[in-house]
Amino acid sequence: MIHDPMGALVDDALRDSCGEPRHPERVVAVQDHFVPAKDIESANLSKRLREFCSKWGVKHHYDVRWGICHVVLPEEGHAAPGDVIVGTDSHMPTLGALGTFSVGIGATEMAAALIMGKLWFRVPETILVKLDGSLPEMVFAKDIILKLISMIGVDGANYKALEFNGSILKVMEMDERFVLTNMSVEAGAKTAIIPVDDVTLSYLNGRLRRAPRPEYSDDGSHSDEISIDVSSLEPLVAIPHSPANVKPASEVDAEIDQAFIGSCTGGRLKDLEVAARILRGRRVKEGVRLIVIPASRRIYLEALRRGIIDILIESGATIGPPSCGPCLGAHLGVLAEGEVAISTSNRNFRGRMGHPESRVYLASAATVAASAVEGRIVDPRVIA
Amino acid sequence: MIHDPMGALVDDALRDSCGEPRHPERVVAVQDHFVPAKDIESANLSKRLREFCSKWGVKHHYDVRWGICHVVLPEEGHAAPGDVIVGTDSHMPTLGALGTFSVGIGATEMAAALIMGKLWFRVPETILVKLDGSLPEMVFAKDIILKLISMIGVDGANYKALEFNGSILKVMEMDERFVLTNMSVEAGAKTAIIPVDDVTLSYLNGRLRRAPRPEYSDDGSHSDEISIDVSSLEPLVAIPHSPANVKPASEVDAEIDQAFIGSCTGGRLKDLEVAARILRGRRVKEGVRLIVIPASRRIYLEALRRGIIDILIESGATIGPPSCGPCLGAHLGVLAEGEVAISTSNRNFRGRMGHPESRVYLASAATVAASAVEGRIVDPRVIA
Repeated sequence: MIHDPMGALVDDALRDSCGEPRHPERVVAVQDHFVPAKDIESANLSKRLREFCSKWGVKHHYDVRWGICHVVLPEEGHAAPGDVIVGTDSHMPTLGALGTFSVGIGATEMAAALIMGKLWFRVPETILVKLDGSLPEMVFAKDIILKLISMIGVDGANYKALEFNGSILKVMEMDERFVLTNMSVEAGAKTAIIPVDDVTLSYLNGRLRRAPRPEYSDDGSHSDEISIDVSSLEPLVAIPHSPANVKPASEVDAEIDQAFIGSCTGGRLKDLEVAARILRGRRVKEGVRLIVIPASRRIYLEALRRGIIDILIESGATIGPPSCGPCLGAHLGVLAEGEVAISTSNRNFRGRMGHPESRVYLASAATVAASAVEGRIVDPRVIA
Repeated sequence: MIHDPMGALVDDALRDSCGEPRHPERVVAVQDHFVPAKDIESANLSKRLREFCSKWGVKHHYDVRWGICHVVLPEEGHAAPGDVIVGTDSHMPTLGALGTFSVGIGATEMAAALIMGKLWFRVPETILVKLDGSLPEMVFAKDIILKLISMIGVDGANYKALEFNGSILKVMEMDERFVLTNMSVEAGAKTAIIPVDDVTLSYLNGRLRRAPRPEYSDDGSHSDEISIDVSSLEPLVAIPHSPANVKPASEVDAEIDQAFIGSCTGGRLKDLEVAARILRGRRVKEGVRLIVIPASRRIYLEALRRGIIDILIESGATIGPPSCGPCLGAHLGVLAEGEVAISTSNRNFRGRMGHPESRVYLASAATVAASAVEGRIVDPRVIA
């Protein structure tokens, strides 16, 4: 997988190596970061990726309207159990929720992989994360992963794989599973994986263009094990400027300027549904901007048909076109000096969403929606 | 009216004059150009305008989600027949469609107007534009105004008012009237006006917060008169790089990379309806980006409820949040080097929508939608 901010660099590296893609049919290109183009520079980058696809015969090219790579690849059937997938984005491990081995790489490494059709990895040790119990109301996968990151730290899984298992997985839908694998990266994980089960196979049914080859976890193959009883969790928030700096939402005291529901870890249908459930009949607080960006055109269209977009706009939300949006401060809601945001996205490093003197809190769509109504960070159970 | 790109300059000019707004209740602020913020600079500009409103008690502040000033002002009841309106945007004459005298001014002039509550104008001479006949199928207000600009040139109405009248006005809805007054600016007009009639009053009913004071045209008050028989018109296109460089769509030979339906002259409900009529059951040509940006949240919501947004997304369109978008190359579809676009917006000066080596053609929503389907500029009647 190659996306718009990296296509030109991959193209340069290919040219410098005098090489060419050995299997263009295995390559997927996605225009998702700076689209529709926010300036001439990003327009030229998108154009370079289009030319790259055209030059090398890359047919799986998802242009402007499709959405975020980590959502488009599974939706369009490009990720299957047993696959090894590499991509020019740090959140590639998202696809591990489908039982793939998926990792982020740089442009030069991508050029090498394209030319040779192979790449070498040290097999990462695996930490088994056992999730048991039952999720309390208004507690979601985002709260589980924030809890885990706070327990092991942002380097707690460096060059390791996180494998999620436990009784809670049996009742966890795909939209939520992707959140766990996506944000494993914030604990330093090389990749993340969820063993294939009926939920996985049911998601793949009708999407996948080939038969899945599920591989399963071996007993005793884990170097470490962490258990979390999710029954004891409550809505959590990561405080600036680290995803590991986690507190219960009820203990956070912060007024907000902006609330963002979107990104590869927070813009799925489930997130929009949860937000709409809270926002139906309520109004976003005067002076707060609520920006909602469905992560793909399929999600946008389905949310439209279920009446979710209508509810969100009525409540005061701005709906953006499928793209990464303000998650990385790219566009569609960049923060000014001194502004405070709560966001469903995955990183709150200093300056991530705009000015170095802005502050970002991370939370579930429920906590973000409730906070947008109150104009300050709140536990969503107070208004749910 | 003050908008986000100019708020900081107006604030500076006020400070330099040691003055303050005499009638803050008459001021309307609209965040429409670079919203949601595309970068730190635009985020800081929006913040400056928010602080301006808060400091001076400007209560009519339409933040991020509302839409484009020239659409929001009429929709929210801030423009009435007989009003004199000034604003920091060149397309202020749009509001003349409601029988107002509305002109664009700079930041320093705005500061003076705010401090003194008055401003002086030389009364412009008026050119009467008589529009008679009946509009052929797939011919719209955009085609009429392009025809007029091609007849008198981009300086043909310098410091003059254009008054639109004639039998065609009796059957022309407000969404179309705004197109005439909006693009009068492209012929150099100081302002434009359409006499008040039942269509105007019906539009104002329920929107206006006070009684309208319509003033009517005096016979013999015009310095010049131009007649156009609209029956003979066909779908027109303004060729790069001038709105006066007009040809029949059927005679234009150009492949396109992008099609844009939006802006203060092309993103109204009527435009989206016309586009949906053409795009229903059709697909945007592979390789072409169709970007649609409803001009206001009310238009977005109404288009959603009428099923228009669904049709547009199904056809392959990307829907942006209410804002000026790529019209002025601000964001949400800036053009790369060498790219070609057809657009419902009002200007196709060199570099207007992005790279100096991009090319912009102007046309009605029908012509833009049909061209998006064909991948090249076409007369919409060939596929309607």
